[in-house]
Amino acid sequence: MAHSGFVDLGFAKVDIDRQRRRGFSEAVYCRHKTVYQIAAIVSQLLKHRQTILFLTKLDKRKFLYLKSRFPLLEYSEIAQIGFFKKKKARRHAREVLVICAGTVDIPFAEEAALTLEIMGNKTRRVYDVGVAGSHRLLHHMKLLKKAGVIVVVAGMEAALASLVSGLVKVPVVAVPTSRGYGANFKGLSALLTMINSCSPGVVVVNIDNGFGAGYAASLINNT
Amino acid sequence: MAHSGFVDLGFAKVDIDRQRRRGFSEAVYCRHKTVYQIAAIVSQLLKHRQTILFLTKLDKRKFLYLKSRFPLLEYSEIAQIGFFKKKKARRHAREVLVICAGTVDIPFAEEAALTLEIMGNKTRRVYDVGVAGSHRLLHHMKLLKKAGVIVVVAGMEAALASLVSGLVKVPVVAVPTSRGYGANFKGLSALLTMINSCSPGVVVVNIDNGFGAGYAASLINNT
Amino acid sequence: MAHSGFVDLGFAKVDIDRQRRRGFSEAVYCRHKTVYQIAAIVSQLLKHRQTILFLTKLDKRKFLYLKSRFPLLEYSEIAQIGFFKKKKARRHAREVLVICAGTVDIPFAEEAALTLEIMGNKTRRVYDVGVAGSHRLLHHMKLLKKAGVIVVVAGMEAALASLVSGLVKVPVVAVPTSRGYGANFKGLSALLTMINSCSPGVVVVNIDNGFGAGYAASLINNT
Amino acid sequence: MAHSGFVDLGFAKVDIDRQRRRGFSEAVYCRHKTVYQIAAIVSQLLKHRQTILFLTKLDKRKFLYLKSRFPLLEYSEIAQIGFFKKKKARRHAREVLVICAGTVDIPFAEEAALTLEIMGNKTRRVYDVGVAGSHRLLHHMKLLKKAGVIVVVAGMEAALASLVSGLVKVPVVAVPTSRGYGANFKGLSALLTMINSCSPGVVVVNIDNGFGAGYAASLINNT
Amino acid sequence: MAHSGFVDLGFAKVDIDRQRRRGFSEAVYCRHKTVYQIAAIVSQLLKHRQTILFLTKLDKRKFLYLKSRFPLLEYSEIAQIGFFKKKKARRHAREVLVICAGTVDIPFAEEAALTLEIMGNKTRRVYDVGVAGSHRLLHHMKLLKKAGVIVVVAGMEAALASLVSGLVKVPVVAVPTSRGYGANFKGLSALLTMINSCSPGVVVVNIDNGFGAGYAASLINNT
Amino acid sequence: MAHSGFVDLGFAKVDIDRQRRRGFSEAVYCRHKTVYQIAAIVSQLLKHRQTILFLTKLDKRKFLYLKSRFPLLEYSEIAQIGFFKKKKARRHAREVLVICAGTVDIPFAEEAALTLEIMGNKTRRVYDVGVAGSHRLLHHMKLLKKAGVIVVVAGMEAALASLVSGLVKVPVVAVPTSRGYGANFKGLSALLTMINSCSPGVVVVNIDNGFGAGYAASLINNT
Amino acid sequence: MAHSGFVDLGFAKVDIDRQRRRGFSEAVYCRHKTVYQIAAIVSQLLKHRQTILFLTKLDKRKFLYLKSRFPLLEYSEIAQIGFFKKKKARRHAREVLVICAGTVDIPFAEEAALTLEIMGNKTRRVYDVGVAGSHRLLHHMKLLKKAGVIVVVAGMEAALASLVSGLVKVPVVAVPTSRGYGANFKGLSALLTMINSCSPGVVVVNIDNGFGAGYAASLINNT
Amino acid sequence: MAHSGFVDLGFAKVDIDRQRRRGFSEAVYCRHKTVYQIAAIVSQLLKHRQTILFLTKLDKRKFLYLKSRFPLLEYSEIAQIGFFKKKKARRHAREVLVICAGTVDIPFAEEAALTLEIMGNKTRRVYDVGVAGSHRLLHHMKLLKKAGVIVVVAGMEAALASLVSGLVKVPVVAVPTSRGYGANFKGLSALLTMINSCSPGVVVVNIDNGFGAGYAASLINNT
Repeated sequence: MAHSGFVDLGFAKVDIDRQRRRGFSEAVYCRHKTVYQIAAIVSQLLKHRQTILFLTKLDKRKFLYLKSRFPLLEYSEIAQIGFFKKKKARRHAREVLVICAGTVDIPFAEEAALTLEIMGNKTRRVYDVGVAGSHRLLHHMKLLKKAGVIVVVAGMEAALASLVSGLVKVPVVAVPTSRGYGANFKGLSALLTMINSCSPGVVVVNIDNGFGAGYAASLINNT
Repeated sequence: MAHSGFVDLGFAKVDIDRQRRRGFSEAVYCRHKTVYQIAAIVSQLLKHRQTILFLTKLDKRKFLYLKSRFPLLEYSEIAQIGFFKKKKARRHAREVLVICAGTVDIPFAEEAALTLEIMGNKTRRVYDVGVAGSHRLLHHMKLLKKAGVIVVVAGMEAALASLVSGLVKVPVVAVPTSRGYGANFKGLSALLTMINSCSPGVVVVNIDNGFGAGYAASLINNT
Repeated sequence: MAHSGFVDLGFAKVDIDRQRRRGFSEAVYCRHKTVYQIAAIVSQLLKHRQTILFLTKLDKRKFLYLKSRFPLLEYSEIAQIGFFKKKKARRHAREVLVICAGTVDIPFAEEAALTLEIMGNKTRRVYDVGVAGSHRLLHHMKLLKKAGVIVVVAGMEAALASLVSGLVKVPVVAVPTSRGYGANFKGLSALLTMINSCSPGVVVVNIDNGFGAGYAASLINNT
Repeated sequence: MAHSGFVDLGFAKVDIDRQRRRGFSEAVYCRHKTVYQIAAIVSQLLKHRQTILFLTKLDKRKFLYLKSRFPLLEYSEIAQIGFFKKKKARRHAREVLVICAGTVDIPFAEEAALTLEIMGNKTRRVYDVGVAGSHRLLHHMKLLKKAGVIVVVAGMEAALASLVSGLVKVPVVAVPTSRGYGANFKGLSALLTMINSCSPGVVVVNIDNGFGAGYAASLINNT
Repeated sequence: MAHSGFVDLGFAKVDIDRQRRRGFSEAVYCRHKTVYQIAAIVSQLLKHRQTILFLTKLDKRKFLYLKSRFPLLEYSEIAQIGFFKKKKARRHAREVLVICAGTVDIPFAEEAALTLEIMGNKTRRVYDVGVAGSHRLLHHMKLLKKAGVIVVVAGMEAALASLVSGLVKVPVVAVPTSRGYGANFKGLSALLTMINSCSPGVVVVNIDNGFGAGYAASLINNT
Repeated sequence: MAHSGFVDLGFAKVDIDRQRRRGFSEAVYCRHKTVYQIAAIVSQLLKHRQTILFLTKLDKRKFLYLKSRFPLLEYSEIAQIGFFKKKKARRHAREVLVICAGTVDIPFAEEAALTLEIMGNKTRRVYDVGVAGSHRLLHHMKLLKKAGVIVVVAGMEAALASLVSGLVKVPVVAVPTSRGYGANFKGLSALLTMINSCSPGVVVVNIDNGFGAGYAASLINNT
Repeated sequence: MAHSGFVDLGFAKVDIDRQRRRGFSEAVYCRHKTVYQIAAIVSQLLKHRQTILFLTKLDKRKFLYLKSRFPLLEYSEIAQIGFFKKKKARRHAREVLVICAGTVDIPFAEEAALTLEIMGNKTRRVYDVGVAGSHRLLHHMKLLKKAGVIVVVAGMEAALASLVSGLVKVPVVAVPTSRGYGANFKGLSALLTMINSCSPGVVVVNIDNGFGAGYAASLINNT
Repeated sequence: MAHSGFVDLGFAKVDIDRQRRRGFSEAVYCRHKTVYQIAAIVSQLLKHRQTILFLTKLDKRKFLYLKSRFPLLEYSEIAQIGFFKKKKARRHAREVLVICAGTVDIPFAEEAALTLEIMGNKTRRVYDVGVAGSHRLLHHMKLLKKAGVIVVVAGMEAALASLVSGLVKVPVVAVPTSRGYGANFKGLSALLTMINSCSPGVVVVNIDNGFGAGYAASLINNT
């Protein structure tokens, strides 16, 4: 059924045209899917030579099963991502910087950073530089100036994205996180902060969507 | 007490008039009910010859108990529906198409599809044809054109209902699902998308309400 | 450019394929459009023989200008709809019933009823039968039983849709309205009520979307 | 410290003036309190002759401990209420009617009914008479007419309160419940429905607050 | 058509059975209705001897027209209520107290108070006794103790209802108002405060619904 | 009636005890009040020697009338405050700094600053130092270090409060404003940002409540 | 004061360092600012050779005054943008495509497109290609494939962004608009749709923020 | 790396400049952090002589591990705070009063009180004095008058903050709590109540943020 651009498994229509159409193969969102469903999808993607593969929001238990089926599968527990191999980073491209505001935001920052690396970007991490101690950010001004794109990951009041954007010439991809409590309402507060940024150049993805931020930043870095 | 149109069990007033009045017997919503309550209600419905029976949002544990009491009871675990038997499909009626956007939406799509079958509709499933790879949908244009009604089940941004409706002459019953994360806010995002559809002909039911969609689609298909 | 299925006016791509594809020509949503934009779109639709035409949310001032350009244009001020002519009602089809809860909901009920008539349905109106005096509804039981589809329009707590659905065998298309005050939050309350209906067979359209309800009810009535 | 109207336990200031001031002793909300805190409060209330005692939202585990300390303590598991004894019902007062829409709403209806009985009201229950089968309600018209106050408990779209109020001369105390799923948003939908009631005479308490409804209904019945 | 319990005007089904059924004739909500609609409804209500008449949310311009048609019509501009005459207050009934928190809440307090008077209750007003200066409330303790029911009207944080209820033995009908700014979100804040009252005996009506509060308080006072 | 601590005008109970009790006389919120009501309240406050007077949210038209009655009344149009005279600033107290993020936030910053001055605080303004150009803020570090309390006024994403707080040892009183558009939802976004601040020492008042912020900052500065 | 990187006008601290720091001079958000404030800011920006100038959300009345002061000022009424001159488009850069779903979304699409042109991008517009007639979009596949970045502007259910992203290799900057009615809640629905996009590569800006989208797209196009 | 003002652990940049800059060392928010992360951060803080240390939202299991590493660590289980030692209270400073409305709010009140004590404030607790029995509060008037700042902690309708503020001359720091059920929506109701306070002098922190309230109150008390 390859001529239709997808393989029909009944419970899934695997989009084997995606690599041609979009440059990267279909990412598999693993929460709410069974390991058997994931394994069947992965088999098809491999069979149809979709070489770069993302399994997002993949918990460890599911990974261990998949590993037994696909021994080459690699995994980052903190980022909850399974993947086959990273693309080789392009030599001359600019570095992408992934910044997060607090230690608790690291899982989503790692999700973004790993996605960037899998897609072949030189990636650098600067973590825990929230606005409560802004000297920690300003200390890294050189890295800020050098980056081709910046991903900013922050929960609670999420002020960091605007501050960073105000200092640089490049686009900032902002990831609100659900980390916090009380009136953060599972990330709503951080989302609204970032969407209302007064600094042009900030664009936003879904709450906790490190993968989407990394993916978009990679597209931007390779424009 | 049958002349009053219901049987009074104290904790429930079983509506044994419903088949006459509405064409189908009362559906029993099983979440938050004990198996003993469900069993007592089912007994009365059977006793008063309410031949088609839906037990919705029925988990497996409750089903197993009920099966021991009512050996003819059938069950779909994925759809979380218990039922006695399917009506025979009307020969000349049009087919109903049940479409879902992602694999994770299948439980609610199956709930709709099974409801349609129980009510006697020829039903066809096309799953995992979300807008991120719209060729998968367009590949099935013939089925879209042939259907008498279409049920569209989608979570996240739920764009599929409008896209489908724009291609066909028949009503689309849209089911927003709670599947997704972050700013989907347990299906609120998908609900708002579908309610705001710019394509006339889209009507909407509750989040995750596959049963309601199937029921309405069956009524529509048999108008 | 007709072979592409649309006419490109720059500010609009008039969908002249819609009548073939969907059975009815494109409806023109007139709020936020200038009369000049509307007139240009209407010209193209007429030129390409899209015979049935809806101009929705059209205020009187805009209508008067359009009337000077298109003398055959008809108008209902209460329904805020401009149209060219009604389709002849099909002789043998069932009647569609449009019910509203209060006098203040009539504009949206009329929008639905007129849409139904333009699309060729026998349409009957029963207005102001809200649940605060339910004998007014029960008095019309014969009409309820006779209808092929029912449109229920209600604001405030919008309880009417469930009550009606519980009495009939046919689908109910529910229109929440923004009429009310305080905690109705511009129709949010009515929308949530209708979406949460405990009566299977209720489907919902957008707040104040009488046109969408009439359109969907017509599709249903002609399935 | 009794002359100050309260006993100071440090973690609680037991309001032993409440019976004099309000007619009934302080109700103890037990969720989020330890059994030791509850026991200490109960001891003080008993010591200061606050004869009628409500322990609301009391789970079974906590009750069993308290029972070992206070052997006269009675308990309703479904209503999650602990109490010492019911007041004798006043002979000539009117009956209070507690109605609920569905079987799943019974816990909160029982909470209201038991509260009414503890406070000395003749109380009658009519359960599972939701609007999807309104003949079940209309069948009980005599009871509706006879009651001095009516408590209506309903989740999902919660249309029942308006319908009941439209049929009677007495106040209706409405309890929205969190029972339902999807767009009921933990009872928000039911709350908005009841607050927006078009029928004057409906008053509302908090979501799932059967105790508050019973308490208010008792005050009303004894005005 | 009187035997059906209503008069059908097309745009309205005037409920002339309401006085028999509910004790008071239908209240006419005048916002969003034309003066001609209101006048026609009033004519029918008078013709069918619905002696007590409420025209709520009636602005002055509409009143002046109606006055020319119905010279006996009386009007309170601050309460936005038109009415024919007040019922004579029952001699031995208890007084109803209407309290408001701030001067800006008076329109809704007056709406409640006037409704109470029209329905034949001795009514007393205590205005501007918000919690920012609670001595103003405590000064009126005698009136609080004497009342049979109390209506509390408050906007902003609306703390007054709980405070009053904690001091008395009678039910408190609470009216949240939309008066305030910023995070009061048109009364949402006040509504949530009152619904979450920790003091049993508080019941709530819609935002700005002085009429509903007065009506319910009158029913309670005459139980 | 002065011994009761208030003067009863019917529509208002003027709190003439407030200066003794709270240190400052009652502030009069002027929106939704008529000039006649305001004038009567002011007369009483003056008569009872409440020397410092705030008329908040006072528009110019109302001021002009009041000026004709009370010639000593002063007014700031941008801050929408009427007042009689400023207290003399205490010589040794620390300065209060009022900062705002954008030019559009000035009205609320001025409301805070003027309130501070009326209450006798040395006050300094630093306006338009939002995070899109954070060098503007850092340039004023000396003023930040010198202040005894800081008021931060910001709309849109309102990141400024956290940034300022992270640099100083003193409390920051944050005022979210409704200025912005789209997803700021009339200040909700800014409110959530400030309430979720990761920097301890930030406290928040209502949206657009410059008066409340100035009042609180003055209390803090004089602790 | 230029060495501090800003000019202090009291009501504004004009950020004359921005061109050096960010590549473009400060954009002036004109809503809620007086023409005198805007003129003073513009004077400073010109004086300090901030050559590219954006005046966003500038209404015509304000523009006409500014034009009299700054004769070279240009203006787009539909985009509500004032500017001095467009940068010359870079010869070899890729084209940016600005797509909108409906005619009513054009103002925000124009705001994005004009911003792109001012910043020196080759820009192409494809308007009114919403999903209700998806052949209109598919007809422009060549333009989609050719673009270096795509801006998608859509209101109502805003499904277009996901559909477009699913067809291309480049980033999509999505602008939700407030155009629509009922449950779009001033753009909230469109915002949630776009933020929840299932297609990686979609990033989002504020509701109606065409300027921000154009600005970000330009940064991306020039990475 | 101390000259940069922070120590870089990769997953955290420990802000060892904070004591100098802000007067107190960095508080460590422990939820969502592993014990190993917390221990590493604590080690650095101790090494760099940040003498006062707060570990907030620290559960018992994590504490027990940390205790084995840092034997001097103290802990309050109810307040979920770990700390090293309390500062000695300043002899002449005024007392801070921590008030809570109900027993269920004590955890957050203790969090505030302990924070105050660690920071060296004389602190007094008055718990369970909610408005349902306001004599309990009024009984403590002397303590209210004596305090230099007051922290008010309350859930449900949270009316207590306004009532307290209306009685005193000092600032009130209000902590909304998530304790309650139904329409409190996890503290949203209490937050809105406190933010809308009609009593000037009330400032608000995040839901359940006892630490933030104590911290701010300490800053205020030491101004």
